[in-house]
Amino acid sequence: MQCSKCGNSQVIIKKQQSGQYLCKDCFIESIEKKVIKTVKKEKLLDKGDKVLVALSGGKDSVTTLEILNSFRKMNIIDICAVTVDEGIDNYRQEGVDIAIRHAKRLGIEHKVVSLKEEYGITLDEIMQKDNHIGSCSYCGVFRRTIINKAAREMGATKIATGHNLDDEVQAIMMNYLEGNTDNLTKLGAKSSSKAKEFTVKIKPLREIPEREIGLYVVAKELEVHFDSCPYAQQSFRGEVSDLINKLSEKHPTIKYSALRGYDKIKEAIGDGFKKTYPQSRCERCGEPSANRLCKACTFLEELGK
Amino acid sequence: MQCSKCGNSQVIIKKQQSGQYLCKDCFIESIEKKVIKTVKKEKLLDKGDKVLVALSGGKDSVTTLEILNSFRKMNIIDICAVTVDEGIDNYRQEGVDIAIRHAKRLGIEHKVVSLKEEYGITLDEIMQKDNHIGSCSYCGVFRRTIINKAAREMGATKIATGHNLDDEVQAIMMNYLEGNTDNLTKLGAKSSSKAKEFTVKIKPLREIPEREIGLYVVAKELEVHFDSCPYAQQSFRGEVSDLINKLSEKHPTIKYSALRGYDKIKEAIGDGFKKTYPQSRCERCGEPSANRLCKACTFLEELGK
Ligand code: SF4
Ligand code: SF4
Ligand SMILES: [Zn+2]
Ligand SMILES: [Zn+2]
Ligand SMILES: [Zn+2]
Ligand SMILES: [Zn+2]
Repeated sequence: MQCSKCGNSQVIIKKQQSGQYLCKDCFIESIEKKVIKTVKKEKLLDKGDKVLVALSGGKDSVTTLEILNSFRKMNIIDICAVTVDEGIDNYRQEGVDIAIRHAKRLGIEHKVVSLKEEYGITLDEIMQKDNHIGSCSYCGVFRRTIINKAAREMGATKIATGHNLDDEVQAIMMNYLEGNTDNLTKLGAKSSSKAKEFTVKIKPLREIPEREIGLYVVAKELEVHFDSCPYAQQSFRGEVSDLINKLSEKHPTIKYSALRGYDKIKEAIGDGFKKTYPQSRCERCGEPSANRLCKACTFLEELGK
Repeated sequence: MQCSKCGNSQVIIKKQQSGQYLCKDCFIESIEKKVIKTVKKEKLLDKGDKVLVALSGGKDSVTTLEILNSFRKMNIIDICAVTVDEGIDNYRQEGVDIAIRHAKRLGIEHKVVSLKEEYGITLDEIMQKDNHIGSCSYCGVFRRTIINKAAREMGATKIATGHNLDDEVQAIMMNYLEGNTDNLTKLGAKSSSKAKEFTVKIKPLREIPEREIGLYVVAKELEVHFDSCPYAQQSFRGEVSDLINKLSEKHPTIKYSALRGYDKIKEAIGDGFKKTYPQSRCERCGEPSANRLCKACTFLEELGK
């Protein structure tokens, strides 16, 4: 077997979509080119942007940082990073340390914010107190609030997250199946800039399949945190993920066609769904919120914090 | 176990969605009420309509005829039926005979049109000649053309087809997955009346799960043709059907939520996709067509007919 691009005999991957065989260098180049293509096509970056990377230390966020850094090296954008320490014993610290080392290696402004400092409680403590809601709901709400706040404090103009093709197609299909049209229009490569209170979010890895990101960090020898969270409980997402992967075996382009179809639907819908942007601010913390209390503060009150 | 409605101890079904147990009479009533509800909610019928039922003799079309007939008995609509005989040996004749008996029993104007009479060729003969396209493509195109023509000839104002909940959700998910947004907006309970050349199509069984239609014809002792076509080759549809059914086991309302979500998306899209309605007529047969030749005539020329 030979690399379909350069003829090198050290092939490391057969691309599922195109059927191409690629050697290590050509594979790395293909991923980086594709991310750059997404950035251009979706207009994810503007010259002069300061992009805050939500850096967990996992493969997706490390890859996001690594590839966006090429735009920084060309002086197109500036980059900073934030890592949220949820406070999960025997799990989170390794990811935080890895994030710190990457930020240092690249010389990037970096902030680590822990739930404990910010709210006086760790996820472990929340889960001991109360788990009728599910760890990921707390985690998601608090992390989002912390990242939004960090973006404002660090003067970021965009927030980049590591969502990959599989994450995105799973979310799209879940919302289709659940008939959850409100969430459906919130997906996409770039969040709406209409809600001026919130920094625009971008997903540079949105067209890269999960397994290729796994291979990319290995090929580039990037240190990443591979363990999975002890609280991970993604039943419906897991089911949807399994069935999309099963369809992909026989229909290798199906994740892409589903993504393209979604993008066309989203564009055609335009303002067809009435979107409600938060009009006021949370009484407790001052964050933008549609209700008297933002979601994070609602949880905190329930937790007696 | 007792019927959740009337207490009768002869329960014949546990409804997947609601968890209700129903006896035979309450089950029959529940199906008929639900179809009537769909008809009203989606405004499928107008007083004075003459509805042409596309009557294959299978469970879906026989149920459609049976339930729409209740509107005929109340003098709200008139009904006629058309059966297409594709010419499939050892298969089609039984369905045609059953269709003839139902039309006779109800005293309904009925027409049987064969591919052989109409185009001088049977599906069996087509499949011996040429099968690079696939039986169902020929069959679908010729059947649709014959039904549209019959509707005009019989003075029908609507065409009713037997599509059930499973058919509809499969088609929706297939189009989502394939990114086929043009076909996506053609689904729904009622076809657009903007293409004036075509009779409006309605799907009264769109909210009834396939297995409940199977049980309905048994409970009502309706004669139907249960065999499946020897050419049936629905690989991708079959895969999608399997995975939706698998999800349904754990999430019994998922077919409904996917249907509702689709309906909201379709409404929000509105005219967001440019739809092309046939502007001209087929040079060969005079049917409305976007191209010089309609699809049926394109196939016929390829087949040398
Ligand atoms: S799996 Fe859930 S609980 Fe664990 S880090 Fe992710 S969101 Fe938080
Ligand atoms: S399965 Fe295909 S070939 Fe057979 S009757 Fe149906 S559409 Fe025609
Ligand atoms: Zn190569
Ligand atoms: Zn708040
Ligand atoms: Zn009963
Ligand atoms: Zn024609």
